[in-house]
Amino acid sequence: MKMKESQFLLIKEQLKKLTSKECFYKQKLEGVNVDQIQSQEDFEKLPFTWKGDLREAYPLGLMTEPEEKIVRIHSSSGTTGTPVIIPYTQQDVDDWAFMFKRCYEMAGITNMDRIQITPGYGLWTAGIGFQLGAERLGAMTVPMGPGNTDKQLRMMMDMKSTVLCATSSYALLLAEEIAKRGIGDKICLKKGVIGSERWGDKMRQRIANELGVDLYDIYGLTEVYGPGIAINCQAQGAMHYWDDFIYLEIVDPKTGEVLPDGEVGEIVITTLRKQGAPLIRYRTHDLSRIVPGECPCGSPFPRIDTLIGRTDDMVKVKGVNIFPSQIEELLTVINGASSEYQVMVDHLMGKDVLTLFVETVPGVNRYALEIEIQTQFKGRIGLTPVVKLVDMGELPRSEKKSTRVFDNRY
Amino acid sequence: MKMKESQFLLIKEQLKKLTSKECFYKQKLEGVNVDQIQSQEDFEKLPFTWKGDLREAYPLGLMTEPEEKIVRIHSSSGTTGTPVIIPYTQQDVDDWAFMFKRCYEMAGITNMDRIQITPGYGLWTAGIGFQLGAERLGAMTVPMGPGNTDKQLRMMMDMKSTVLCATSSYALLLAEEIAKRGIGDKICLKKGVIGSERWGDKMRQRIANELGVDLYDIYGLTEVYGPGIAINCQAQGAMHYWDDFIYLEIVDPKTGEVLPDGEVGEIVITTLRKQGAPLIRYRTHDLSRIVPGECPCGSPFPRIDTLIGRTDDMVKVKGVNIFPSQIEELLTVINGASSEYQVMVDHLMGKDVLTLFVETVPGVNRYALEIEIQTQFKGRIGLTPVVKLVDMGELPRSEKKSTRVFDNRY
Repeated sequence: MKMKESQFLLIKEQLKKLTSKECFYKQKLEGVNVDQIQSQEDFEKLPFTWKGDLREAYPLGLMTEPEEKIVRIHSSSGTTGTPVIIPYTQQDVDDWAFMFKRCYEMAGITNMDRIQITPGYGLWTAGIGFQLGAERLGAMTVPMGPGNTDKQLRMMMDMKSTVLCATSSYALLLAEEIAKRGIGDKICLKKGVIGSERWGDKMRQRIANELGVDLYDIYGLTEVYGPGIAINCQAQGAMHYWDDFIYLEIVDPKTGEVLPDGEVGEIVITTLRKQGAPLIRYRTHDLSRIVPGECPCGSPFPRIDTLIGRTDDMVKVKGVNIFPSQIEELLTVINGASSEYQVMVDHLMGKDVLTLFVETVPGVNRYALEIEIQTQFKGRIGLTPVVKLVDMGELPRSEKKSTRVFDNRY
Repeated sequence: MKMKESQFLLIKEQLKKLTSKECFYKQKLEGVNVDQIQSQEDFEKLPFTWKGDLREAYPLGLMTEPEEKIVRIHSSSGTTGTPVIIPYTQQDVDDWAFMFKRCYEMAGITNMDRIQITPGYGLWTAGIGFQLGAERLGAMTVPMGPGNTDKQLRMMMDMKSTVLCATSSYALLLAEEIAKRGIGDKICLKKGVIGSERWGDKMRQRIANELGVDLYDIYGLTEVYGPGIAINCQAQGAMHYWDDFIYLEIVDPKTGEVLPDGEVGEIVITTLRKQGAPLIRYRTHDLSRIVPGECPCGSPFPRIDTLIGRTDDMVKVKGVNIFPSQIEELLTVINGASSEYQVMVDHLMGKDVLTLFVETVPGVNRYALEIEIQTQFKGRIGLTPVVKLVDMGELPRSEKKSTRVFDNRY
């Protein structure tokens, strides 16, 4: 996608600022002459920024504004290593709320909605992001935070919440619980804003049907504000991102080469206005593609496709690359299988074995279903799995992002 | 305390507004002619508002602004019954942050401090109140939320947090943990801002000593914004409250009569600027007194004493009224006893029995200590308890407000 003139100017200004004082990027961009960056092509020669760079900067190495301008930090969970800490100025906090408000508006949410917020607060960017954006919109927030399903449902009914903000996994849990308790007619939800992780159409449809809502994927990551930098519109299918705040590239995950619009690759983000911790060409590990052309909704903001997966949740088994999204798509076409699954990859007696656990609807012929899943898996993905069917609800539901693929070989 | 002219005008304006449209107070004040309220004495004839009134208004009966102006609700925990829901407009949220900023400033905290926030977020007012106030000040917030002591301590060290916001109970837990791990020299804390519940001087001193910090009591309640309406200054000893936002009376808990400055009674609050859910003469159940005279710190804001207890945590045993504060004071003078205690009141074989559990320091002569506590208790409070000594750390620490008195008779 062609870089806009306005984006180029913001990037140049930022690069000048970053290379003129002691900070993370002064080191990172050592040897780069900013004056010589005259075009998008020049920009694309700049080095990528990696999550590992951010980890090395722990705790506050990314901070590019003086202490007195920083009002907050957020942090990625750090379950996979040293956490990453992102400092925010007041302007960053305000810009984020502004973008988040725009997300709600894109989803047709207004100041007459009541927005129940179930993601967590604190170091995680989710809860407070959803809240301050909704407050900026002037909607009534019902700030629940995670867990306590009884209380969630009680407040959802008593407050007549019209919008649910949640991870897909927690939205599913709530939908199932509402069905189980037979309280669907007391629920006033109209829309769900679901933190974008990779989730399949089948799961999406189950949540939409059981809650009777329209669902909107909202995208973001702690390193770049948090959720709220993109959301799908009412035409559905793809997410508009705010190209006045971020510059987005899609690159080949292996070569780093920028890909043409429409091709799937890794999302790379450059922030245009961030103060506390600007990022240049940050590798998100999220896989998507630019959706070319104009959106039927009429919005001028460009689009990326629903996330296809992450570069790091691909597993390679017997030479075959497998993405969770492929398994989700497979399950969509199989009657009797639910959307919930788990994959275990093990090395047993000298061989790699992929075991696929799938939740099934009651009363299904399990033997026939196993055979069908095996056959379809082999046909579509190129490998024969061991299939284990389990009852609905047996696989874990998570309040945060779900891990569905476990590679036990290493 | 004499009502200021500016307070009177704000109250009159508010009363006129509240009685001119359908809302909670239009009903509550039926028959009151606002034009006839000409003086403080007239105001003092208005009926009190009780927590029960607020519960009956569940869920949104208190809301006095139209839906589109409400941006948030908070709620009291509701462990003792139907929760109370308080709606906030954007101005309420801003006013609260403004008052909270003033609290930090009163405690000598600046935009160069790093403020670690350990109370919870969500429906509870604590976490987000501490955070938005700190952000308004321009300090760097480290938004932890409750629990996960390992991570709290790691962030406290890595972020070099200088201010700890916590309940007294959680501050104690962290202080003990720091001592146990011998990491005191890696802790940069200078001040603690402690959510005001009733806590004794001994506990205060232990926290102050072990953390090496100055402690500030911050006061507030969900029904009236949340924490941040009063805090003690660097002269210590009493809390300044913001009389440009609240009008505060001290009344006899039994008769409701307004008491002279200096006398202990129940705090009654009238909000002066609140929009979402204004309150007129709200009975807080908190016991304190107006501290007469001027504060050596020079602040013009009036003062209330450290909370003495709550009208509802008094227990009556064998005709004797006992407040937790009396037990805390008692333990202050007893060598070998820590600040931590628990009281169980039971009805056994036709008699009321008060059992006092006390944590003791190691190596103490337990028999002698038991006798001493019994004797002192009888002498000061007028009743002989059963004393049970336990080791340090055996009694529960809580992240929220501690309950130390359990009346098992009913």
